[in-house]
Amino acid sequence: MSDENTFRPKDRNFIESGYKQQLKQSSLTDLLVHSNYNTLSLRENKRNIDEPVNYVRIKALEESIRRDIISDKNSLHRAITPLLILMQMSGLLPVQGIRRQNTSYLVFNWFSWILAYSIILVGSSVLMVSLVVCNLYSNGLSYEVIGDLLFHGGTLIMYTLFIHLAREWPKVMEKWELMEREMKQYGYPSNMAFRIKMFSCIILILSTIEHLASILTGVLKAIHCSSDGLDIFKHYIFTWKTFFTYINYSFAVAVILKFFDCLYSFAWNFIDLLIIILACALTDKFKQLNQKLASVRGKVLPSVYWRKSRETYNILASLTHDFDEFLSPVILLSFGHNLYFICYQLLNSLKPMLSPWEALCFAFLFTYLVGRTCVVSLYVASINDQSKKPKAVLFSVPAECYGVEVERFLMQVMSDELSFTGCNFFSVTRTFMLTVAGTIVTYEIVLIQFNNVASGVPNQNNTITNYCSKLL
Amino acid sequence: MSDENTFRPKDRNFIESGYKQQLKQSSLTDLLVHSNYNTLSLRENKRNIDEPVNYVRIKALEESIRRDIISDKNSLHRAITPLLILMQMSGLLPVQGIRRQNTSYLVFNWFSWILAYSIILVGSSVLMVSLVVCNLYSNGLSYEVIGDLLFHGGTLIMYTLFIHLAREWPKVMEKWELMEREMKQYGYPSNMAFRIKMFSCIILILSTIEHLASILTGVLKAIHCSSDGLDIFKHYIFTWKTFFTYINYSFAVAVILKFFDCLYSFAWNFIDLLIIILACALTDKFKQLNQKLASVRGKVLPSVYWRKSRETYNILASLTHDFDEFLSPVILLSFGHNLYFICYQLLNSLKPMLSPWEALCFAFLFTYLVGRTCVVSLYVASINDQSKKPKAVLFSVPAECYGVEVERFLMQVMSDELSFTGCNFFSVTRTFMLTVAGTIVTYEIVLIQFNNVASGVPNQNNTITNYCSKLL
Amino acid sequence: MSDENTFRPKDRNFIESGYKQQLKQSSLTDLLVHSNYNTLSLRENKRNIDEPVNYVRIKALEESIRRDIISDKNSLHRAITPLLILMQMSGLLPVQGIRRQNTSYLVFNWFSWILAYSIILVGSSVLMVSLVVCNLYSNGLSYEVIGDLLFHGGTLIMYTLFIHLAREWPKVMEKWELMEREMKQYGYPSNMAFRIKMFSCIILILSTIEHLASILTGVLKAIHCSSDGLDIFKHYIFTWKTFFTYINYSFAVAVILKFFDCLYSFAWNFIDLLIIILACALTDKFKQLNQKLASVRGKVLPSVYWRKSRETYNILASLTHDFDEFLSPVILLSFGHNLYFICYQLLNSLKPMLSPWEALCFAFLFTYLVGRTCVVSLYVASINDQSKKPKAVLFSVPAECYGVEVERFLMQVMSDELSFTGCNFFSVTRTFMLTVAGTIVTYEIVLIQFNNVASGVPNQNNTITNYCSKLL
Amino acid sequence: MSDENTFRPKDRNFIESGYKQQLKQSSLTDLLVHSNYNTLSLRENKRNIDEPVNYVRIKALEESIRRDIISDKNSLHRAITPLLILMQMSGLLPVQGIRRQNTSYLVFNWFSWILAYSIILVGSSVLMVSLVVCNLYSNGLSYEVIGDLLFHGGTLIMYTLFIHLAREWPKVMEKWELMEREMKQYGYPSNMAFRIKMFSCIILILSTIEHLASILTGVLKAIHCSSDGLDIFKHYIFTWKTFFTYINYSFAVAVILKFFDCLYSFAWNFIDLLIIILACALTDKFKQLNQKLASVRGKVLPSVYWRKSRETYNILASLTHDFDEFLSPVILLSFGHNLYFICYQLLNSLKPMLSPWEALCFAFLFTYLVGRTCVVSLYVASINDQSKKPKAVLFSVPAECYGVEVERFLMQVMSDELSFTGCNFFSVTRTFMLTVAGTIVTYEIVLIQFNNVASGVPNQNNTITNYCSKLL
Repeated sequence: MSDENTFRPKDRNFIESGYKQQLKQSSLTDLLVHSNYNTLSLRENKRNIDEPVNYVRIKALEESIRRDIISDKNSLHRAITPLLILMQMSGLLPVQGIRRQNTSYLVFNWFSWILAYSIILVGSSVLMVSLVVCNLYSNGLSYEVIGDLLFHGGTLIMYTLFIHLAREWPKVMEKWELMEREMKQYGYPSNMAFRIKMFSCIILILSTIEHLASILTGVLKAIHCSSDGLDIFKHYIFTWKTFFTYINYSFAVAVILKFFDCLYSFAWNFIDLLIIILACALTDKFKQLNQKLASVRGKVLPSVYWRKSRETYNILASLTHDFDEFLSPVILLSFGHNLYFICYQLLNSLKPMLSPWEALCFAFLFTYLVGRTCVVSLYVASINDQSKKPKAVLFSVPAECYGVEVERFLMQVMSDELSFTGCNFFSVTRTFMLTVAGTIVTYEIVLIQFNNVASGVPNQNNTITNYCSKLL
Repeated sequence: MSDENTFRPKDRNFIESGYKQQLKQSSLTDLLVHSNYNTLSLRENKRNIDEPVNYVRIKALEESIRRDIISDKNSLHRAITPLLILMQMSGLLPVQGIRRQNTSYLVFNWFSWILAYSIILVGSSVLMVSLVVCNLYSNGLSYEVIGDLLFHGGTLIMYTLFIHLAREWPKVMEKWELMEREMKQYGYPSNMAFRIKMFSCIILILSTIEHLASILTGVLKAIHCSSDGLDIFKHYIFTWKTFFTYINYSFAVAVILKFFDCLYSFAWNFIDLLIIILACALTDKFKQLNQKLASVRGKVLPSVYWRKSRETYNILASLTHDFDEFLSPVILLSFGHNLYFICYQLLNSLKPMLSPWEALCFAFLFTYLVGRTCVVSLYVASINDQSKKPKAVLFSVPAECYGVEVERFLMQVMSDELSFTGCNFFSVTRTFMLTVAGTIVTYEIVLIQFNNVASGVPNQNNTITNYCSKLL
Repeated sequence: MSDENTFRPKDRNFIESGYKQQLKQSSLTDLLVHSNYNTLSLRENKRNIDEPVNYVRIKALEESIRRDIISDKNSLHRAITPLLILMQMSGLLPVQGIRRQNTSYLVFNWFSWILAYSIILVGSSVLMVSLVVCNLYSNGLSYEVIGDLLFHGGTLIMYTLFIHLAREWPKVMEKWELMEREMKQYGYPSNMAFRIKMFSCIILILSTIEHLASILTGVLKAIHCSSDGLDIFKHYIFTWKTFFTYINYSFAVAVILKFFDCLYSFAWNFIDLLIIILACALTDKFKQLNQKLASVRGKVLPSVYWRKSRETYNILASLTHDFDEFLSPVILLSFGHNLYFICYQLLNSLKPMLSPWEALCFAFLFTYLVGRTCVVSLYVASINDQSKKPKAVLFSVPAECYGVEVERFLMQVMSDELSFTGCNFFSVTRTFMLTVAGTIVTYEIVLIQFNNVASGVPNQNNTITNYCSKLL
Repeated sequence: MSDENTFRPKDRNFIESGYKQQLKQSSLTDLLVHSNYNTLSLRENKRNIDEPVNYVRIKALEESIRRDIISDKNSLHRAITPLLILMQMSGLLPVQGIRRQNTSYLVFNWFSWILAYSIILVGSSVLMVSLVVCNLYSNGLSYEVIGDLLFHGGTLIMYTLFIHLAREWPKVMEKWELMEREMKQYGYPSNMAFRIKMFSCIILILSTIEHLASILTGVLKAIHCSSDGLDIFKHYIFTWKTFFTYINYSFAVAVILKFFDCLYSFAWNFIDLLIIILACALTDKFKQLNQKLASVRGKVLPSVYWRKSRETYNILASLTHDFDEFLSPVILLSFGHNLYFICYQLLNSLKPMLSPWEALCFAFLFTYLVGRTCVVSLYVASINDQSKKPKAVLFSVPAECYGVEVERFLMQVMSDELSFTGCNFFSVTRTFMLTVAGTIVTYEIVLIQFNNVASGVPNQNNTITNYCSKLL
């Protein structure tokens, strides 16, 4: 292929990266099955002899062929649709075409309603952050204000980031689809669509309960502080002292604020869900390869078999790197958010509880937060676990058929650290989870220390009387 | 062997995994020595020509041959019997056939007395946990209650886990036996049976002393608090405030509770013992291989020698992975339990002691706990140490006989991290032990901090007067 | 080349190290283009037959040819000139010839004005350190005194170190220039000169603001403490209690001290800038190589192509090691300085602020310090990131052209840890940044603890009244 | 060499390990130069034909030849003699023959005066430990008692350990001598003998000053507490409250105790010195190899050259492992001792100083302790640094002469982690030093915390009045 600059109509270079090029031949053959490509190429071959090639027309034809393909029900693009709808309801990932039959319809459009919605949410986050900063300036630092600042600052970054991700989404999904076609002989994971629906339902239900629990906590505090039963809602809304210092209280504003707050809260749950599902989909592909490899353990196979397997592994490895590049800011954001709020809640756990209901709400909120973080970590870590599994099979290859291909495969498995990372600052593996647990403990110590030093006396004066006076 | 779907009577596929397949030929030849297999295969070969093969009959014959084999006295299956008897007395590992002549008699039966016993213990643990949770709900969080919760929660998980392990035990032991036959030329470790008996005795004696010491501590406190000598036993039992808040005190219930408590306490010792002995058995096998390799250091040997050694190493490596998959939940549980109770006892060490006897009991309990954790860690870590030893021999292979087999062997030794892990969260190596020591220190800091913050004033008010009032 | 001791006029050995030797042939061919070398070599070849070679004359000729070369505008030597001028204004890197047309004019001279200036600054630092030590002896340990000691001690080490670095600079830049010629086909990074100017401007502006902010903080404190408006300057200067305990106060001395203080403060900014720019230049070279490699991903190429690429990579790897040896003390110093002052400022953040202006100044100072440390870390870490990128391309090399050269390349990329280090104590990678963040937290805890234990009561008595009494 | 069991007189197997066997041929040729071996072998060859070989006689002859060899002045055995004499004066390493001309005279004898001396010191340590334990039992835990316990416990372990090491010393030195002969062409490090003498002098002087400083501290406290000048010595001795609680005070006993205390204190310095010097000697050998390799960087050399270099490297690697096995308990002991006492002194630094002299003594003691620990760490870490250096040369081997030998060499350098370890719990590298610094900080926090919790109120009541009452 050294004479690559000469023209060969069979090898049109309209997709650039070497990775795609590598996938092309098989994917084209794949396309032939579903399309009227045959006639086209016949005509083209003929024309090739006596007239110049019309690139634009070829590309248009190919595009039209591609658009006719219907992806499998269990392909990632179609299986992930329910999640994407949920995310778009929270204003995340404003990309168009998520319900269409294949990835070629995915498009990011700067002038779409869904993007306008996202931009409104970015705007609202900016407003929230500026209110918190004003509050910070007038009232000074406190744990509540820093917590608000990090929550709303994080939300702003999240919405901005997802507009960027929406632009990348079509490219990433196209790469995935190419890989799916390349691995067609392995089939699609049979219950992918069902599993994604189930995951989405579970997270949706749990995050609804979480939100209700946090409302209940606020209402309980409001009831406690209100002298008569009438102003409970007002008191409850006043738990956001932050916002009504600058804006006069009105019912409409309160409802709108509450609505945005609710959206933000769900959005944070959905990005964890997105990470889980993408990790899960990638792990499944590695599992399929591993199962096939495990079935030939100890058998004598020709070199070409190992070459094929190695190339499949390499495609998955490339895809993992691409997905990591795409997802790693989200992972950094999600882990940072979860870890900070675990520390924050642990610190809150030292405060006296006003009622058993509050204790129960707190227990649920804390357990859900820790549990969600663990589940995200475990699913992401399983990519790394699965990517190491071919090692055992490769060590057991009989001496008769050990050759350069097995050696290359082994070297790649051994030295290529495949996992999702948080912007390369950390790789999410099982070992990493222990480190995180240790980090939470260390940060907890420093938070308690700062708390003691800052307040002079520890939390004894957090009695109920001055709690209400603090509130109003 | 690409045409693997055609029928070859010599290569019957009634054991599935590639690992076993790899071992089969040699183990079958091994079987021939002890059996009337020859006549069978002769007959079979004849029949092969003119009639279809009767799979069921062949399998039955083979099974009958296998059952006649008597394992060596120092084989793991027979050497570990005393430990398994002790464990079954504590209700752990409810598998049948542990005293039989080889592993093919091992069977897990859902309708056996030994399993019923285990299930009763699971039930009692559930009861204990629910009592502790009730107590937690009514009295709030305290170190004692959290300690109780973790102890009884851990016990519940342990008993449930061991029912699962009992189902895996026959398979794991079968793999081990296959490895033992494959490594027959290395012989059985001569004093394995004796060493396991000795270990079991030592742990049995020490855990009895430990239990007596903990009873003594309770009795000393009871004596201190009782006005006259009559109600010491009652007072002692009342140190379990947890249980008699909800159940009326009766002597019978107290004795039954005490019996279960005693069983639980021994069970925790036995799982440490199980880990030690399995690690020890595996290390011995690596040692045998290393000794043989060390004896040929620097000598010129044919490629086939290195191939044989590499394959033996690979069998051991596979077995280590299998054992790790089997044991890793137990290791996670054991390390978690031991670390928490080391922290807990360290925190207790800050309380004033009522008498020199109590101090002595405390010193014994603490030393035994730390010592046992260290011994478990060191024995498990020795697997990793031994698995790295062939490296030095392989680096010294003379240039004349260096080839692809030596290279593969070296690559496997270098890159395959063989060790037991705690569900892949951590590998137990010597380096890990230092990390654990550091972790204990860090967690101690956070426990002291929480203790101070929670109680407002440090432990000065833990004087003897309010100790008794707390007790009753 | 085994007969290397025989004389070959084409392979003159007047540059010693193997690394340079490796580069020479191509660099000589390069030189031929720009010079009258042709005639010389013709003459020489003739003379070679009948008379002994005149080494001295050849060397002189070659030197004269070299001196005529004009380096590219974007070559490191010429692009870095603005930064070096700034550094020399702060008394750092007293080397001559930084504005000349190529690196052969760079020379370190023990009797130059620029060195005299550096030595004066070393002397002033020695004076400062001795004053602080006297102060420490008479007043005892306190955080302010330790902060002063570390700042002025660090400054002294910095100036002494940079005199040493100035001696190494010509050699290091020569190596870089050789590499640049070797990689001539990759071209020079087009905007290198512009980027360095921009970086220098940004850092210059920010460090000026930083210095003004620190002056403002001092003046605010002085205003607060002065009864009438006249003695503000004196009060301000007295914030350096350290120096006027031993020297009688005079306006001239105060101005000179202020001038040196200003120089030191800028110098610390410039060493961070130097690290950023050198890391940036090296990363660019790796990026050029990676871009070329990425463009051939998945293509079948002859072995000689991979050999050439590997050799280029190896030259960059050698250069990274050389630069690391040169820069690592600076990196250790810079990281140590930045980390200590981050901890110090965090501790200061617990003190009550006297006014919103002071709070604003503090916020700027702290943000700038943390931001600068992060930027330095990220730029240095990008060397390691870029050096790992060829791995993906090498794993995708088609089986047809995989050979020993690709294998060697892969092995080097996998196993050679290329990054700048802090005297080998740590490698600056992205993972390292998280560790540093954790370390800051831990050290913060210990600083707070010592602070509490040392002062008996925490910072409540740091009220404004005793602040002024402390000051005077 | 597969027929290794047949007899070949040229290959007598009287030294067992493969490692030695590998070295033998060259070392024997070496021997021939210095001896009358020629005639012997002639006679032997003749006899070989017609009579059975007399093994005993051959061995005796060879032994007699060996004993005539005079080791080089800079060989480790002869250069280390001054240090060993110092150590034997402190009762460490009771081996005979340290002043003889070569290592074959080294012998460990259970009935020698030097061993008797060591055993007396072991006995005295046992006595000290039991006194401290009695004291602990009667007075309870305190930092002083724990410090005493760890010091004397550590001393006991040290003396016991060195009796074991004395038995190993002859074997280890013999291995070293074989390596020295194998590397004869590299020569002996020219100034080894001088450097060891210099190191010993420096440590001897500094440890004398250290001891005087600690005596001075005691005397200053004694002066402070004694009412008149007469009982200073008695008061000083009473700073060891530990010992005179059980023994009646007498001048003779005090002097003997002081003498032992002095010996122990020097012994701890000498084990650090031993570690430094052995690490230094090993590093030198790696440096010699690296220098030779660096001189051939980028040159085309025959495969046999790389084979020779690899074998030399492998000998050094084996020796490093052997030395590590020998030294690692000492390293664990030394690091543990140093780290504990650094923490202990840091805690002491929080106490008020009685006088500037005491502060000066403390500053010296602390600086010396930290400095010695750093020097030990850096020298030991340099083994690892040097062992990695061949990597750069091997990556630069030209493609023409790259072969299996270079690949094996590279693989060994890359994967063999050569360094001294603390019983495999940690490897002493430069990275490790940072970890240790972090550990000291963490342990310091926990010590302060325990101190606060244990004493209720922090160190304010450590005033001078109750200091004296505590003393007497």
